[in-house]
Amino acid sequence: MALADKRSRLVDAAVNLAYRNGFGATSLADIASEAKVPLGNVYYYFKTKDEIGEAIVELRLAQMAAMLKRWDGEATPRDRLYRCIEAVLGNRDFLAQRGCAVGTFCSELHKTGGAVAAKATGIFSQYLAWLEVQFRALGQGKASRGLAVHLLSALQGVSLLAHTFHDPDLVTMETRRLKAWVDSL
Amino acid sequence: MALADKRSRLVDAAVNLAYRNGFGATSLADIASEAKVPLGNVYYYFKTKDEIGEAIVELRLAQMAAMLKRWDGEATPRDRLYRCIEAVLGNRDFLAQRGCAVGTFCSELHKTGGAVAAKATGIFSQYLAWLEVQFRALGQGKASRGLAVHLLSALQGVSLLAHTFHDPDLVTMETRRLKAWVDSL
Repeated sequence: MALADKRSRLVDAAVNLAYRNGFGATSLADIASEAKVPLGNVYYYFKTKDEIGEAIVELRLAQMAAMLKRWDGEATPRDRLYRCIEAVLGNRDFLAQRGCAVGTFCSELHKTGGAVAAKATGIFSQYLAWLEVQFRALGQGKASRGLAVHLLSALQGVSLLAHTFHDPDLVTMETRRLKAWVDSL
Repeated sequence: MALADKRSRLVDAAVNLAYRNGFGATSLADIASEAKVPLGNVYYYFKTKDEIGEAIVELRLAQMAAMLKRWDGEATPRDRLYRCIEAVLGNRDFLAQRGCAVGTFCSELHKTGGAVAAKATGIFSQYLAWLEVQFRALGQGKASRGLAVHLLSALQGVSLLAHTFHDPDLVTMETRRLKAWVDSL
């Protein structure tokens, strides 16, 4: 197994376990076992749990950047906002089971703070800046920042409720409302 | 120290530590130390971590019921919805530092599930049912459930963003928007 391959298997395992069980509840031994890499080898790639945390954030940042780039391919800002709302809708069964991967990660990490938590904030910063650009393109000017915060709040909040009630229909209901709201602007 | 007093000190310590550091990161030893109760005594009141979790949920349920009862004293459903939005606004500095006590607790517990997680869902059920009653009283009929989900989502979502960015101003901005939204109904 090539080194790069082993590292990426460890990061994938860490991403999956942290999403499934929480970052705090995931040990280096769990990650090694999930990735089928001997525990002794893990220390070659990651000296500490924090280094694993940083690798998770880097992967999430790259995924977010790729997603926003795909959505940028839509013709109008309204279509781009629709795509981001529809992505949450399409994810509703995972949300009802495990919550939002980014939201639950940030919520957990910011209890204790530290470098990984600060870095994880960058995922939402990137998303919020992109949303603001869309609202500006819709002609919302100075109100755009507040509209971006409103949309991301609604999406994150309904993800938390869907997770707590294990009910994907809450996401269906709220995303329908949010699309109508975008149309009303 | 009376037994009841010792128990309530342990529960208060558990509530505070779980809010500050997360429930998973809080050990029985931490709780004993914070409550200034010998660790050996803790087992007299709580045999397991789950029993502590249930005591936390019971306290949060009682706090929620007391809060809703206070808000019921307001003359109109609009005033009652205002009070619940203003409560989040008044809490913005804590939200920016630690997140929502109920939201972060539910988000964490529902990763692993279990009896405490299921019981914690009751806190949001109670709140959501109360919000729905207010929207019905405002004449929103069958739309009331969706409006209740929208309001609670927005409040929970902006609490998560304020926590992630450590920025209470996000709460100020979003609650202003939500009050205008209630007025528009």
